[in-house]
Amino acid sequence: MDWMTELRNMLGEHRVTDNLTTREQHSKDESYHPPHLPDVVVFPESRDEVIQVMKFADRHQIPVTPFGVGSSLEGHVIPSKGGISLDLQQMNRILEIRPEDFQVRVQPGVTRTQLNQQLKKYGLFYPVDPGADATIGGMVATNASGTTSVRYGVTRDQVLELEVVLADGRVLQTGSGAAKSSSGYHLPGLFVGSEGTLGVFTEIRLKVCGIPESILSARAVFPGIRPAVRAAQSILSAGIPVARLELVDSRAIQQVNHYNHAEYPEQPTLFLEFHGNPAGLKQDADFAGQLAENEGCEDFHFETNSLARAQLWEARHHLAYSFVHGTPGKQQMVTDVCVPLSALAASLEYARQLIDASHLDGAVFGHIGDGNFHALLMIDPTDEADVQAANQIHHQLVEHALAEGGTCTGEHGVGSGKIAYQRKEHGPAYDVMREIKQLLDPKAILNPGKMFDEK
Amino acid sequence: MDWMTELRNMLGEHRVTDNLTTREQHSKDESYHPPHLPDVVVFPESRDEVIQVMKFADRHQIPVTPFGVGSSLEGHVIPSKGGISLDLQQMNRILEIRPEDFQVRVQPGVTRTQLNQQLKKYGLFYPVDPGADATIGGMVATNASGTTSVRYGVTRDQVLELEVVLADGRVLQTGSGAAKSSSGYHLPGLFVGSEGTLGVFTEIRLKVCGIPESILSARAVFPGIRPAVRAAQSILSAGIPVARLELVDSRAIQQVNHYNHAEYPEQPTLFLEFHGNPAGLKQDADFAGQLAENEGCEDFHFETNSLARAQLWEARHHLAYSFVHGTPGKQQMVTDVCVPLSALAASLEYARQLIDASHLDGAVFGHIGDGNFHALLMIDPTDEADVQAANQIHHQLVEHALAEGGTCTGEHGVGSGKIAYQRKEHGPAYDVMREIKQLLDPKAILNPGKMFDEK
Repeated sequence: MDWMTELRNMLGEHRVTDNLTTREQHSKDESYHPPHLPDVVVFPESRDEVIQVMKFADRHQIPVTPFGVGSSLEGHVIPSKGGISLDLQQMNRILEIRPEDFQVRVQPGVTRTQLNQQLKKYGLFYPVDPGADATIGGMVATNASGTTSVRYGVTRDQVLELEVVLADGRVLQTGSGAAKSSSGYHLPGLFVGSEGTLGVFTEIRLKVCGIPESILSARAVFPGIRPAVRAAQSILSAGIPVARLELVDSRAIQQVNHYNHAEYPEQPTLFLEFHGNPAGLKQDADFAGQLAENEGCEDFHFETNSLARAQLWEARHHLAYSFVHGTPGKQQMVTDVCVPLSALAASLEYARQLIDASHLDGAVFGHIGDGNFHALLMIDPTDEADVQAANQIHHQLVEHALAEGGTCTGEHGVGSGKIAYQRKEHGPAYDVMREIKQLLDPKAILNPGKMFDEK
Repeated sequence: MDWMTELRNMLGEHRVTDNLTTREQHSKDESYHPPHLPDVVVFPESRDEVIQVMKFADRHQIPVTPFGVGSSLEGHVIPSKGGISLDLQQMNRILEIRPEDFQVRVQPGVTRTQLNQQLKKYGLFYPVDPGADATIGGMVATNASGTTSVRYGVTRDQVLELEVVLADGRVLQTGSGAAKSSSGYHLPGLFVGSEGTLGVFTEIRLKVCGIPESILSARAVFPGIRPAVRAAQSILSAGIPVARLELVDSRAIQQVNHYNHAEYPEQPTLFLEFHGNPAGLKQDADFAGQLAENEGCEDFHFETNSLARAQLWEARHHLAYSFVHGTPGKQQMVTDVCVPLSALAASLEYARQLIDASHLDGAVFGHIGDGNFHALLMIDPTDEADVQAANQIHHQLVEHALAEGGTCTGEHGVGSGKIAYQRKEHGPAYDVMREIKQLLDPKAILNPGKMFDEK
């Protein structure tokens, strides 16, 4: 009996497929990384089935690559050594909403918007917003963050407890239902961001927040990137608890104008959001506007009404979309460095210069309250010159970020795209990471080819 | 040549001492745990000297127990197997303050107030406030938190980068200067809270915050513990970003009145603090006051002036002091469970009942925005009946907290006092913790006797 038949007998015919279309869907993500087919796609419906699959894979030494919705930007879900693509989308139940405790317990296949729709009924929301409608499991695997992290923190900050199936089928329950703990080593924080290389998440307990009483959005137009960054720094220095603080460069605004027939000033623009009570918001926004003006802001505009707020942020929301859909035949390649704030302005300008000096089109934008920014480059992945130019820009931005004491990835994760920089970024700590990987996955069956280079 | 002579030749006479007084100072902490003398106290002044000591200890298999100011409440710094007490107080330099980056780099022996005094000049502060003037190294080792964590998070949330000397003298630099990262396994989070069992910290990079524009303090008196907790929950549910949210029970207020000749209403009392802009604070405090009144609050009083604020919080600040100094011949034994908020009121009442049913005197108070509370019990550690009664209360509170999905320690750490509950709290995850300990400290020389039971 071959191993696929054994799997089918174990889980049932309809949850183990080697159908080519399904395998192709599970061979890629939203990145430029080359697809690779899994041998089989498996759809477990419970923790016990995940245990069965892992014990089976351990016995046969078959690679297992967890899959959510495939929104990774660094090749995480590409089964680069074949084997099993473990699709967790059937495990998409919200198991518990505990409003009094500000926490929820979910299966890994629950998506962000699915969760927020349910939470809304209780006046709660899950604050991490990476843009994509990713699964919670995927967000935990990459330690996703995004526009709100300047105020609410990253995914790791929200994870209270994890149920994890290890490579050999052992199950850990790690963390607790308490809001904080000093008991034992912090294993939840180790599993968050482990990108499917240490275990498969089967349950996740998250902190959630009360929906703020009032929200105010603002847009501030600047004569250049430097004054925009200085304004952002002044706002943070003043202790204004801004909930989102985004920078979009002029090329991006231009593309949004072109694609949406809009007429935003084609200049570096800050998009801000404030959460709180009406009086406080008004004072925060007025103060922020004043600080922005001190740095040369030419137009500071804010709105509280939810429709007007959405319109105000339109250029930020449609940014990636207007490039991806406005440049047919091209795909996005997105860099993701994060630097100390004092190095941010120079890094952003450097990114712009690198794009301008190349033959590629692209924008620079970012979550600048965290020092995290992206160069979005439009490439034809089959055109060697495009790929080479994009890789070169990526390489120079990472080298620059590391020289400034930053990181090669602020939120997208290592996957296969950042492996080359792990040794340089982490030094001897990379050896310790590898030792931990070997400790928990001695047969290297969990998402092989990610995070670690072949020795 | 005996090993102490070898150490003296290595570091110099004056930094290696077996003087009894010094050894006695390093044999104990602020807890009720029985002292144990180190064989020698070593005062390194640099990372390189810590490396030398660890290589030496590794070669001779000598236990090493790091020591800060000895403010531990769980026996962390007691060298329970003798060997070297590694006193890091000479490594007390603030290496770098980077206001633009909202970060500092310090040596482990820097104390919390030392750091805040320097930060003040830049309009910054380090937000974690455990009460004691602990060293930063000690706070990182126990993942300390305290009164402000409901707003600013725990120590682990502030640590950007760590320099760690491992048991064999290897040095890791882990983390980065970026505010967030998704690069590699999160080793900083693993070392935070490792209580000296995985490595010795030699440099720590921390996030710091802008001092808020305005601060408002409030005190709210309630007819019972339940309405006080309900009011706290309403305030959190409303999304009011309260910066401190403390509960003190009536026995504690009584003791403060007695010791300070004060006349506070001897009822359960909430102490609150709000950080923000004046208009927002006023609205937040008014709203909080209204929510408190809805739950039966009999007196809600607030102040913005800093002297009046200090007076308002006096009963909270003098709580432990008024017991410790008001009960000559007794020592404090402090429990530290943390539970989901929905279990908090019942847990607090249970703690009060257990104290009342015993022959011990004590108070119940806590950081109730996090669900973390303490029973402060006054005992004579040489009186077996006292110790037994205190241990019994402690045991029952931990069992209760674990049954509610909480943790045996919210902020004080495991040390030697919570080892007995690790297996029950963590299950198979405790095995993984032990495997990580063995991976990084195979000879078990780093703070032996803490966190793990003897196998």
